[in-house]
Amino acid sequence: MSNPTASNPTAAILIIGNEILSGRTQDVNVQFIARRLAGIGVRLEEVRVVPDIPARIINAVNELRAAYEMLFTTGGIGPTHDDITSECIAAAFGVPWELHEETAALMRSVLGDQVNEARLRMATMPRGAVPIRNAASIAPGFTIGNVHVMAGVPRIMQSMLLALEPELPRGTPIAMRAVHGMGVLEGAIAAGLGAIQARFPGVDMGSYPFKRDTGWGVALVAKGTDPAALDAAIAEATALIAAQGITPVPGEPD
Amino acid sequence: MSNPTASNPTAAILIIGNEILSGRTQDVNVQFIARRLAGIGVRLEEVRVVPDIPARIINAVNELRAAYEMLFTTGGIGPTHDDITSECIAAAFGVPWELHEETAALMRSVLGDQVNEARLRMATMPRGAVPIRNAASIAPGFTIGNVHVMAGVPRIMQSMLLALEPELPRGTPIAMRAVHGMGVLEGAIAAGLGAIQARFPGVDMGSYPFKRDTGWGVALVAKGTDPAALDAAIAEATALIAAQGITPVPGEPD
Repeated sequence: MSNPTASNPTAAILIIGNEILSGRTQDVNVQFIARRLAGIGVRLEEVRVVPDIPARIINAVNELRAAYEMLFTTGGIGPTHDDITSECIAAAFGVPWELHEETAALMRSVLGDQVNEARLRMATMPRGAVPIRNAASIAPGFTIGNVHVMAGVPRIMQSMLLALEPELPRGTPIAMRAVHGMGVLEGAIAAGLGAIQARFPGVDMGSYPFKRDTGWGVALVAKGTDPAALDAAIAEATALIAAQGITPVPGEPD
Repeated sequence: MSNPTASNPTAAILIIGNEILSGRTQDVNVQFIARRLAGIGVRLEEVRVVPDIPARIINAVNELRAAYEMLFTTGGIGPTHDDITSECIAAAFGVPWELHEETAALMRSVLGDQVNEARLRMATMPRGAVPIRNAASIAPGFTIGNVHVMAGVPRIMQSMLLALEPELPRGTPIAMRAVHGMGVLEGAIAAGLGAIQARFPGVDMGSYPFKRDTGWGVALVAKGTDPAALDAAIAEATALIAAQGITPVPGEPD
């Protein structure tokens, strides 16, 4: 299938997270970042999750920052012994990891006596990093080169991403349209859907079965940068569902 | 930090999913697989999400199946044009992609006249693949070499993984213990927590801030294979929270 957003900037996400790999924590950061990036026309091309092991983090950072125009990392920038992302980013860039004086001063002015060695780790960054100040935490994320280093706690990550967003390169926003029907069988509409995809090469058509209390359904989703083409493709997908004797419902299932 | 499960078998997950990268769909498969693997002592070492593009899928399959003892893929094995995982697995292994006669016969016996070209795609597999029969779908996943190919729809994926589980290599199960406290500040306990980690090198200690309506808290989590060491480490973590004048609560936050 053709790619209507081939000229859009590309991005990857690296999740530094033993807690995701152990199954302790359900990640919700990927979906938030993915939606924000789609809204500014950035193509999210890859996500990786690696454990809190320096060599693994460093290798993944260097692979992903070379392969994509932007890399967003989440996790591992707090004050505890298992927060090793910041040092690893410095190692990946081959620069010293040192106190960022302006951030340290800001932390001292807000936290006073509570500033200790552990908290100052959060004011320590790769040389050349630019802090990502945000509303949720006195401890900032930071940007170095094309790598944006953010917290793992969703509320803080979101605040950092929103603070960062105006600075990011943009492309043509990627829009989505959907239609769905209860009782649609993918196997019965697959040929028709393939034909719609063939008629709209600039639209990315997807088919997604879902389960509800009342049974199974299928959502047909059109994604791309040309609103008129999306509307036309979804009109055909709607007719395809109706031709099964099933009532098509606009949009995604609840 | 030492790795108490270094001898456990390793695994990776590859999610083939435009719908994850676009932000349309919240992945829930990683956590399910991660927890099941932890329960049988398999170390989940990496997760990747790649788009529905053959070269990306093939490269990721070949990298991950070489790097880890098991690879689990999710997504892209339905009957529609965007379901390309199965062909890509055949390409990754350099084997023909051909009708699996036994599966085709099974589908014909259940579906009769409804078996069409699209549905027979779900009975087409890399040569040498072994079907993963399951309770949720007449269309099976399959295993080839150390790669286990599963559906993306959570209910079907779960059924496939449970069917597969008795066949998988096992290690020492990885257990977790936790304690948490509302109002705990990571920066205040970081030094103490680092000391606990140092005293229990065979335990993997993590610190995870969380937000509730009543404010912020921190969960301290001990992970490893030695129950006595986990209990001892969590007892120290409990005392560390209590020393802050905060009531420690056993387990994870609700």
